[in-house]
Amino acid sequence: MGEFERLNSHVPHSFRVIALSLEDKIVFYPIGYVKTPNSGDEVKEKSVISQIILQPRLVEALDGIEGFSHLFVLFYLDKVPAEKNSVLKIHPKGRTDLPLMGVLGTRTMLRPNPIGLTLVKLLKVQDSVLTVQDLDAYDGTPVLDIKPYDPWDIAKDARVPAWWNKLYEGLK
Amino acid sequence: MGEFERLNSHVPHSFRVIALSLEDKIVFYPIGYVKTPNSGDEVKEKSVISQIILQPRLVEALDGIEGFSHLFVLFYLDKVPAEKNSVLKIHPKGRTDLPLMGVLGTRTMLRPNPIGLTLVKLLKVQDSVLTVQDLDAYDGTPVLDIKPYDPWDIAKDARVPAWWNKLYEGLK
Repeated sequence: MGEFERLNSHVPHSFRVIALSLEDKIVFYPIGYVKTPNSGDEVKEKSVISQIILQPRLVEALDGIEGFSHLFVLFYLDKVPAEKNSVLKIHPKGRTDLPLMGVLGTRTMLRPNPIGLTLVKLLKVQDSVLTVQDLDAYDGTPVLDIKPYDPWDIAKDARVPAWWNKLYEGLK
Repeated sequence: MGEFERLNSHVPHSFRVIALSLEDKIVFYPIGYVKTPNSGDEVKEKSVISQIILQPRLVEALDGIEGFSHLFVLFYLDKVPAEKNSVLKIHPKGRTDLPLMGVLGTRTMLRPNPIGLTLVKLLKVQDSVLTVQDLDAYDGTPVLDIKPYDPWDIAKDARVPAWWNKLYEGLK
């Protein structure tokens, strides 16, 4: 019995049946990839302009998207070495003056499933190519999904911990 | 030569090398699943309260997450039949009085990669269980990632198309 099964044997049966599926693989395919002239960590400067080159067969799936000013881009953090995805705690941005946080309580690239999520401005749509601003993804990054940003995505009264404000002081 | 390769042969070589990887599988595993007493489409009523039951081995990855009031939950839309993921255009919410849109220009569940993204309120964290409000995911839905919501996720000046306002008139 593996660690997961052992831990799982203590949860109620009605949960366990579902929990067994936690071992299941979920398979996705890139719908396109990121093209940017920025190299390395230049892409983390939030004003960078990039392109998303979609698979040509998906061109119709973009119809009408230009009505939205902003998009969420979901992408595969393929540059993170696989062994780093088992890290559970980090100091935000490696700053040891900030608290040691669980990875799911931060936006670090080190996550159990290496999926990036970034809000971008949509500048232009031409055929199957989107030009966007603010995408902090490296050149060649596989794109998983694109979703239009809408008022449901706004939490006006969002609260963040003190370390977050300390980290981003002066950046906005 | 398949359709993708044929179309791809027309793009510049520097793109093509990367584009070949578009056929690559990307594999994720559920980090947990959704538990809700709401059945069927009741979960789409935005005020529902659900739990996210994380894999117990990930409990440390939640440390400090309670400092955030809101989270993004990324989940696998496992109830959508696979053949529906090749749909390219839809009328939002099936309403034929609204324009026929590309799926990537809407938040429909029918997407090339069936990934859901919902902003939720974090009500409580206990061990590896999160209690959240507003999660429109069915009971048993596999969870892919959890990300804290922060001020970078706010687009104050977001523009949406006219149909969006028509669809959600009176809902907010």
